[in-house]
Amino acid sequence: MVDAAVLGAGAWGTALAKVLADAGNEVRLWARRPELADEINRTHRNPFYLDDAELPETIRATSDPAEALTGACTVLLAVPAQSLRANLVQWAPLIGGDATLVSLAKGIELDTLMRMSQVIIQVTGADPSRVAVISGPNLASEIADEQPAATVVACSDSGRAVTLQRAFSTGYFRPYTNADVIGAEVGGACKNVIALASGMAAGVGLGENTAAAIITRGLAEIMRLGIALGAKPATLAGLAGVGDLVATCTSRRSRNRSFGERLGKGGTMESATRAADGHVAEGVTSCQSILALAASYDVEMPLTDAVNRVCHRGASVYEAVALLLGRSTKPE
Amino acid sequence: MVDAAVLGAGAWGTALAKVLADAGNEVRLWARRPELADEINRTHRNPFYLDDAELPETIRATSDPAEALTGACTVLLAVPAQSLRANLVQWAPLIGGDATLVSLAKGIELDTLMRMSQVIIQVTGADPSRVAVISGPNLASEIADEQPAATVVACSDSGRAVTLQRAFSTGYFRPYTNADVIGAEVGGACKNVIALASGMAAGVGLGENTAAAIITRGLAEIMRLGIALGAKPATLAGLAGVGDLVATCTSRRSRNRSFGERLGKGGTMESATRAADGHVAEGVTSCQSILALAASYDVEMPLTDAVNRVCHRGASVYEAVALLLGRSTKPE
Repeated sequence: MVDAAVLGAGAWGTALAKVLADAGNEVRLWARRPELADEINRTHRNPFYLDDAELPETIRATSDPAEALTGACTVLLAVPAQSLRANLVQWAPLIGGDATLVSLAKGIELDTLMRMSQVIIQVTGADPSRVAVISGPNLASEIADEQPAATVVACSDSGRAVTLQRAFSTGYFRPYTNADVIGAEVGGACKNVIALASGMAAGVGLGENTAAAIITRGLAEIMRLGIALGAKPATLAGLAGVGDLVATCTSRRSRNRSFGERLGKGGTMESATRAADGHVAEGVTSCQSILALAASYDVEMPLTDAVNRVCHRGASVYEAVALLLGRSTKPE
Repeated sequence: MVDAAVLGAGAWGTALAKVLADAGNEVRLWARRPELADEINRTHRNPFYLDDAELPETIRATSDPAEALTGACTVLLAVPAQSLRANLVQWAPLIGGDATLVSLAKGIELDTLMRMSQVIIQVTGADPSRVAVISGPNLASEIADEQPAATVVACSDSGRAVTLQRAFSTGYFRPYTNADVIGAEVGGACKNVIALASGMAAGVGLGENTAAAIITRGLAEIMRLGIALGAKPATLAGLAGVGDLVATCTSRRSRNRSFGERLGKGGTMESATRAADGHVAEGVTSCQSILALAASYDVEMPLTDAVNRVCHRGASVYEAVALLLGRSTKPE
């Protein structure tokens, strides 16, 4: 049993708070808005995310980071990638000196091109052995519904990895340990961009052969970037790479795929954003930082480049899809 | 332009005959039944497979193997894996001495545990450099519909690979060359079994996280077998591995996935076979030969084993799914 703080009451934070509580741990869930924390404590539901899921009564919600963090030996950082640093600056003084810091954020920081674990290490001064990443084919709504899922718990400290594995193990959620933090982070950050590309192709009416080719060529460019950054190919061929990529690119519940599909059907960035309740899909932001990071390592990422052209340079989806399909014939 | 014989007028043979003809080649399509050959020549449709597709008038169908093979410098072998040998024994004397033999069959021969290219080499006495394999995420119905698709043309002779690449290149079909025949064959043979497992999981009501985990763990066991047999990991991470696996496991048009889904919904082998117009799915047969081949190389294939238990040992789908999901927590 661990004493855990989950910082962020979005879909993924809420789902993993439920997993931790179901596995018998002490869980405090931080929500930015006091009204949301109150409502979770009163109704044991999160009305904004996963509102069908009944949350265990042992989850205690709070809008006070100090209350969430005091005594926590496991800290889940469940805020969006681009706001992790600003939040963490405020939380760092409250985090225990030996707590394990678990990143749930998926992305590459725009200004610095850092992975989330690098941001965590820089802001908190934690030793890298204290930083872990959870990533895998894990649609939050299915986890909340207790559908069987597997995931990767990556940490360079194998003892912490095993402690986390035990803390998150329930009948429906199965974590596998892995020492490759970089691989888990690269897989998680890049898949949203490929899901946008998959959605665009589906939106213009292309079929399952094209979808599979996009996933495969997406995996190839993710592997190129990952290997350049020091990831292990096996991690990217595993749950946090292929697995998460397949789930995100094929699921109709994936926000990035849906966003791409709206663009493929002729929607503008503005109309697609409106249809997503004002939220720009994560891959729209991260395609920029991933592309800049890839460029700094001389890695080619043609799919990510095509998505970037559509989202930020005014290219049409048709131009992008032609770019994706129209490369000259050459060896695989 | 090549002079090609396509031996077998099933869905895949018919689709690739159309690709070859669309790319400007001379194509003769052999069908076992004279009536079918006549009908294709008269109506330019194949009434049994892909009957929505209009076939180019330049495809000449025949039920006479000699007529199909005379002068053919490219021979596509498009009959089912388990009947390739018996057919090839009859065709071998008719095949030109320098013709490229292209395997479209996906499977491992039951009695000998040979890959299709090994069967071809053994029966025809052809040098291995003359044997090629085409494999990738290629649902035949989408190819016939001219939806964009990519594939792998694998041949140890790079000159022949490039000739085939050119012969099959059309606006909607894009072949990539690869020297790794073994990798292309292992990917193609094993994916049908994993698609059965995916279908079973979907049939019992499991969701997209489970589906992605099955694809990922399926890929891991395909890679283990492939590497033991001498395949390159990059091939299995490419179109003929991951790509074909994803397309076959996620498509509702995949016969193996549908067959598994019927079993998952409580159907018996008999009722699932009836629902598939009397055809047992390919993976039902090949799970046996794949498992025997894996055992001879000391390779563990737990998903293939679970499928085999359901299809041939009377295990229930629930037992098999529990086996798939219930492995003890350990490193990825």
